[in-house]
Amino acid sequence: MMNIPDSKHPRVVIIGAGFAGLSLARNLKYKNFQVVLLDKHNYHNFQPLMYQVATGGLEEGSIAYPIRKILQNHKESFFRMSEVLSVDTTNKKVHTDIGTIYYDYLVVATGSTNNFFGNENIEKHSFVMKTIPEALQIRNVIIQNLELALQTNNQKIRKKLMTFVIVGGGPTGVELAGALAEMKKAFLPKDYPDLDFSMMDIHLIQGGKRILDAMSDKSTKAALEFLQRLGVTVHLGQIVSDYDGNVVTTKDGMQIETKGMIWSAGVKGNVVKGVDDKTNRSSRIITNEFNQVEGFTDVFAIGDIAAIQTEKTPNGHPMMAQPAIQQGKLLAKNIEALEKGFPLEAFVYNDKGSMATIGRNKAVVDLPNLHFSGIFAWFVWMFIHLISLIGFKNKALVFWSWVYNYFVFDRESRVLIHPLKRKLSEEIDS
Amino acid sequence: MMNIPDSKHPRVVIIGAGFAGLSLARNLKYKNFQVVLLDKHNYHNFQPLMYQVATGGLEEGSIAYPIRKILQNHKESFFRMSEVLSVDTTNKKVHTDIGTIYYDYLVVATGSTNNFFGNENIEKHSFVMKTIPEALQIRNVIIQNLELALQTNNQKIRKKLMTFVIVGGGPTGVELAGALAEMKKAFLPKDYPDLDFSMMDIHLIQGGKRILDAMSDKSTKAALEFLQRLGVTVHLGQIVSDYDGNVVTTKDGMQIETKGMIWSAGVKGNVVKGVDDKTNRSSRIITNEFNQVEGFTDVFAIGDIAAIQTEKTPNGHPMMAQPAIQQGKLLAKNIEALEKGFPLEAFVYNDKGSMATIGRNKAVVDLPNLHFSGIFAWFVWMFIHLISLIGFKNKALVFWSWVYNYFVFDRESRVLIHPLKRKLSEEIDS
Repeated sequence: MMNIPDSKHPRVVIIGAGFAGLSLARNLKYKNFQVVLLDKHNYHNFQPLMYQVATGGLEEGSIAYPIRKILQNHKESFFRMSEVLSVDTTNKKVHTDIGTIYYDYLVVATGSTNNFFGNENIEKHSFVMKTIPEALQIRNVIIQNLELALQTNNQKIRKKLMTFVIVGGGPTGVELAGALAEMKKAFLPKDYPDLDFSMMDIHLIQGGKRILDAMSDKSTKAALEFLQRLGVTVHLGQIVSDYDGNVVTTKDGMQIETKGMIWSAGVKGNVVKGVDDKTNRSSRIITNEFNQVEGFTDVFAIGDIAAIQTEKTPNGHPMMAQPAIQQGKLLAKNIEALEKGFPLEAFVYNDKGSMATIGRNKAVVDLPNLHFSGIFAWFVWMFIHLISLIGFKNKALVFWSWVYNYFVFDRESRVLIHPLKRKLSEEIDS
Repeated sequence: MMNIPDSKHPRVVIIGAGFAGLSLARNLKYKNFQVVLLDKHNYHNFQPLMYQVATGGLEEGSIAYPIRKILQNHKESFFRMSEVLSVDTTNKKVHTDIGTIYYDYLVVATGSTNNFFGNENIEKHSFVMKTIPEALQIRNVIIQNLELALQTNNQKIRKKLMTFVIVGGGPTGVELAGALAEMKKAFLPKDYPDLDFSMMDIHLIQGGKRILDAMSDKSTKAALEFLQRLGVTVHLGQIVSDYDGNVVTTKDGMQIETKGMIWSAGVKGNVVKGVDDKTNRSSRIITNEFNQVEGFTDVFAIGDIAAIQTEKTPNGHPMMAQPAIQQGKLLAKNIEALEKGFPLEAFVYNDKGSMATIGRNKAVVDLPNLHFSGIFAWFVWMFIHLISLIGFKNKALVFWSWVYNYFVFDRESRVLIHPLKRKLSEEIDS
């Protein structure tokens, strides 16, 4: 058994300390529940800024926040760093790598993971960016490929090492491509004076006809223009079918040689064993409008992992921070209502808009009735992200880094702390 | 062959980008040499503050500085991230994992590494702090042991997980013990309200009769008192003879059960194959007062790896930043003198003093004619370390973290980015 004290209050077990899980835990603080929060990491990470960790603009510590610090002074809240193995809804138990725990209410808030749509080759050879170690790995790949490029006079291999391909034109792919182009502009040529940076190519491949396809036409067009102005080659309507570690191939037969392919073309629910039969085709757990999993009153799913299936939202809400935070907040109320026998309140998504940044002075913002882009959008983007960060110290660190990067035209976070084990010889052989 | 452009100037190959190697590279900038700097990391780390990374006071990025950024605008300087396999002084070549390179002058500046004095058990089970990944590992061990302590009701195992033993009463051991005691005071009880922190013990074991034995009597006594006031149990005159991962044993038979033993009781030269026959019993390369390795005019050793063997310094200079920096600076002059046929200048160490910090408001400072301790010493210590850091951004980050930690009584750098793979079950079995 997991070592948690007994309580006179009902126990809510929350799996996952992302936006949804944390929002719920914080909103349960003053209600009469014992809260047990489980996560395999001891920190909450601020996913919207992760691409800046990958591209050297921010240190990982600036976007990671200790979960225990968030729960300080929550008397009835307990955090346990653990990996959930399965849930047993019949006996109301959660099995983890550090023991089993009973629940009165179970909330699955496990978020999303990469979706390779069954393509094993791509899964094996591409880099992804769903966790902080993965973001650091992308940073390492960029730097290490350039270090390797220095070691060869074979122009074909050098070109391959200096070519980066990002697959997926959603916010992650667009922001990564833009930030990589900024790296190329800001400091890479100064760091590597013996490399010819006209050889460095950045490709963004999007399956659909538009990038940022959840955004307005106006924003989509502005983002495309920003990317092209930064020197990113954008391929639209191309579906990547293979990557063997050396060549990216699309269904139409386009081929790009690269040693650095980043996959951001798909996500799916990060489902937990025991509730994995309740999912839609994106592996998201189907729930009703109270976030209750089909067939249960005491098992919930919130955030990316949940798809509230209604007529208006046949595939659930967008997999973004806002729906997750709002669902967490409402569920705190609803669990209390359940306990008191009151009626539940249905979830209604309050769409505050969406935005993406492409580079220095370049962002696009969609508000419900207003779309704008450029330097003002960029400031709005920065402001919203700054105030959304948890903790004064993280806000200050990020603010400081941005001011520094802006005025010094630099990204200093380019040290290889846990480099990949790769050698040029292997690169050539492969 | 390593891919370095030809030059009309003689080539100086420097192995290691620590204080000594960087000092030399920077001082060769305006002289007529091609400089090739080799290091297996792409960053210089500021060793004196590493214990603060290990204890959550600083992010690793604050003490790591990209080597390429330091060499920007050095037109004749080339950095190659590589591991040196051996040197061949007969043919004037250095063999690395990315190829071989010829040198006109070779400078070994490979620093020092941990010395376990042949004790394999200790080497296998203890944690060390010579590199940033190792410092992060210590941070992870501290946090993970507390997470594991939560999972058990077995008081014996819990005690073992909450006991930390630091072996070696030099600056590293003293500073680590003090910082760990500060963690216990500052935030650990708030993070782990369900643990009883009267069970957390911090031991410092020193073989000699005094801690900080290179410092003045006055400083030694002050440091001891500071540690004891912080609750550290200091054992003097105890030689650790074994650690099996569970019990630290000393020659006198003292035993302490712990799952976290940090070894800082010995360093030795980090010697390179090919010049390893020129070493003293601490594996430091013996040189003359011009830092020339015995039998050579074109092979040098500087910094921790070098022992300038004279009557006054039979074992070489202290293995600290100052002698390294000063030797690097002088060697730049001497290599130029050699090239021009001028006489060489002998190295004379300018001892600017030494210092150590034990905790908040607690430091000891030895200047050549003045010894003082307490809050003023602490401010001097901080000031000296701040101005010694390379780069405006790192200075600002460290300054900001210290101000924050001081006023908020916190250390926020406690996220486990690359946690060790350990489970309580293994701990119990072991």
